[in-house]
Amino acid sequence: MKHILVIGAGRSSSSMIKYLLDNAEKEDWHVRVGDMNLRLAQDKVNDHPRGEAFEFNALNAEERWAEMLHKDLIISMLPARLHVEVVKDCIKLGTHVITPSYISDEMKELHDDAVKAGVLVMNEIGVDPGLDHMSAQKVLDDIEEAGGKLDSFESFCGGLVAPESDNNPWNYKFTWNPRNVVLAGQGGAAKFIQEGQYKYIPYHKLFRRTEIIEIDGYGKFEGYANRDSLKYREVYGLEDIPTIYRGTLRRVGFCRAWNMFVQLGMTDDSYVLEGSENMTYRDFTNSFLAYDPHNSVEMKLRYYLNIEQDDYVWEKLVWLGIFSDKKVGIKDATPAQILQKILEDKWTLAEDDKDMLVMWHKFTYQKEGKDREINSSFVYIGKDQTYTAMSDTVGIPAAICAKMILNGTITLTGVQLPIYKEVYDPVLKELEEYGMIFHEKQVK
Amino acid sequence: MKHILVIGAGRSSSSMIKYLLDNAEKEDWHVRVGDMNLRLAQDKVNDHPRGEAFEFNALNAEERWAEMLHKDLIISMLPARLHVEVVKDCIKLGTHVITPSYISDEMKELHDDAVKAGVLVMNEIGVDPGLDHMSAQKVLDDIEEAGGKLDSFESFCGGLVAPESDNNPWNYKFTWNPRNVVLAGQGGAAKFIQEGQYKYIPYHKLFRRTEIIEIDGYGKFEGYANRDSLKYREVYGLEDIPTIYRGTLRRVGFCRAWNMFVQLGMTDDSYVLEGSENMTYRDFTNSFLAYDPHNSVEMKLRYYLNIEQDDYVWEKLVWLGIFSDKKVGIKDATPAQILQKILEDKWTLAEDDKDMLVMWHKFTYQKEGKDREINSSFVYIGKDQTYTAMSDTVGIPAAICAKMILNGTITLTGVQLPIYKEVYDPVLKELEEYGMIFHEKQVK
Repeated sequence: MKHILVIGAGRSSSSMIKYLLDNAEKEDWHVRVGDMNLRLAQDKVNDHPRGEAFEFNALNAEERWAEMLHKDLIISMLPARLHVEVVKDCIKLGTHVITPSYISDEMKELHDDAVKAGVLVMNEIGVDPGLDHMSAQKVLDDIEEAGGKLDSFESFCGGLVAPESDNNPWNYKFTWNPRNVVLAGQGGAAKFIQEGQYKYIPYHKLFRRTEIIEIDGYGKFEGYANRDSLKYREVYGLEDIPTIYRGTLRRVGFCRAWNMFVQLGMTDDSYVLEGSENMTYRDFTNSFLAYDPHNSVEMKLRYYLNIEQDDYVWEKLVWLGIFSDKKVGIKDATPAQILQKILEDKWTLAEDDKDMLVMWHKFTYQKEGKDREINSSFVYIGKDQTYTAMSDTVGIPAAICAKMILNGTITLTGVQLPIYKEVYDPVLKELEEYGMIFHEKQVK
Repeated sequence: MKHILVIGAGRSSSSMIKYLLDNAEKEDWHVRVGDMNLRLAQDKVNDHPRGEAFEFNALNAEERWAEMLHKDLIISMLPARLHVEVVKDCIKLGTHVITPSYISDEMKELHDDAVKAGVLVMNEIGVDPGLDHMSAQKVLDDIEEAGGKLDSFESFCGGLVAPESDNNPWNYKFTWNPRNVVLAGQGGAAKFIQEGQYKYIPYHKLFRRTEIIEIDGYGKFEGYANRDSLKYREVYGLEDIPTIYRGTLRRVGFCRAWNMFVQLGMTDDSYVLEGSENMTYRDFTNSFLAYDPHNSVEMKLRYYLNIEQDDYVWEKLVWLGIFSDKKVGIKDATPAQILQKILEDKWTLAEDDKDMLVMWHKFTYQKEGKDREINSSFVYIGKDQTYTAMSDTVGIPAAICAKMILNGTITLTGVQLPIYKEVYDPVLKELEEYGMIFHEKQVK
């Protein structure tokens, strides 16, 4: 029997733990699931005969070490900054480990130690990062094998509401951390390279420099640039590529309306509004508009942001309630915190709503003197509020990887990403059984 | 004979040292002027029989203490963060001290010690801060004495090029630190209160929310909001005032054009541009515009920022050379550093150019049931490139204050601002002899 330890049983662990338990009998696994919150772990294990839930403080080094002894694989679902300590223990113990998070600089430094210990530290094997790497690297390798020369790589990903649950004017609901959505794009200019020219987009222009893409059967989406597209040149070994761009997907029209919040200053998280607790949503909106006793808040906003009466942006803003007399009720709140509250009132998934994960890659290359293009698209809809698209796409790739490490299909060691054929090929193949299918299309 | 020590002989000290030396014989003063750069000190003292220049490292505590012994007054013209150590020594020695800088929190804490030692630490006695405090407090006290009830206080200040030297389409040249001009308004939203409503302007909207003011004989100016107008409520004892606003003055049209740089992202100082050293000004501009091989950089910029062909903004941008093939030549430069270089090529004062300091206050109040308004305006033109408007307006108020401390006219102790009648009345009166005159006008 193989022993698996899962550290962290939050909502991103649901699908991963389910996969492990569903396969435990057949694969002869025992799955121990630890969380600070025992209840969370118990809910996930649900009295499965091959599973065990327990209360676990992963920050306590002794407790952690004792628990990690005699395991065949560790899966760390902790917040990203906490993985390193777990991985150090794994290297000492000679135990393989999986994390879905980005490789930090500290983590990278452990590579040689991991290789020496014969330990695989597999990172970035969720959805974004994870599925993006695997699905892109597959096409990149195919193009190279066929003798093609890559000109450009663009890649977009977005967590959205499923079409059947899409019933608001924004075509958007929160499917993950709302705070990250409100702060998205802040902290510096977006950087990418196009036809060999470096391009920089400041935050206040980010949502006006979008690209429209279309996915068969799902209609149009728009993408805004991620903070740093340049680092993916190294990830995919594309140091000399003339064009690389990574973006986040929303439904068409979202970004132009979101830009209104950016322009007003409502997404700012750097200062606190005076008297925020007793403000209404209307007061909040008015605090970003010039004083003018002769015009309504609505008129001032329309005039300031140049929104015509029949502009669809207007309907979106009104629908959210930014002109309502509802109380903010948060003491010493930043604009971003108040905006988040307003959005949570309206963008929270209803009990039977489903979410959707969308990914889209575009590769252009030359082969036999001709310009060619491949698109790869992926749409996956969640089952319910536990096995969401987000949870499935984060957790099932990680769980399949776990299986392949335990059964010896993957023999890598060191601090790694899932960009090797021996990893992505079997993972992508099995994911198809779960309905996670990348549709590749030769456009040119 | 009274002994004065001036620490720091940079360009902001010129007029102050000249006043002290001009009055040294009559007042029986000896003026020692120390600077890290001996030459700077020598230039300012210019072999005056009552003056003495010497090389001085104010950061060396022993050297500083020895030099400060047996002085009657210290004037610290050091960078703002360095005043505190000097002031601590002054309190130990029982010596009065003047600084033109804002009172830091650390400085504020020295108040009780200064009072106990019978020492006056006079701060913020330059132009802004300094002349602004004195001229405003005078009107505020007058209104209160006459039984008026203040409704609003707005105050603007700007360092500009004098009309006789104003020969470029921006009606602007650098009269002080160019870096501060490029970064002006960054680091958080501008905050003020109007009719009891708190208002916040994000940086990317700051230069579109301007006010126009007119000063007799000098035409129109526009003002954009300073970062924090709210703190002036405390400074002037106006805690309950419904409207307070502080702004920076430029000539009309400057802000709309400057906003183009903000919108492009050229004022960002938070990241470095790839390959900045070998970029041209044109490449720099292009790096903020979308890739489009079919349109010129000029066309793309006009379209992106919605600038019509006959818009005066266009002339300003072209004149600066942002489309030229001149090399940037700075390694690892931020956008703000490159923009500063482009501006310095064009906005540097010529040898016989003069600068101009403009200040304007507006007070509205009620008296005998009627709405009333007073405006106070100030325009001062520099003499040359040494005795600039900036140097005169920073240095002469401080020097007059020095005289009044030494001759016993000012008897305050503690960490203070020049907001007391015993200070501002004689200072403002003597300043008139130097042509620094506030014109007060009862508008209503």
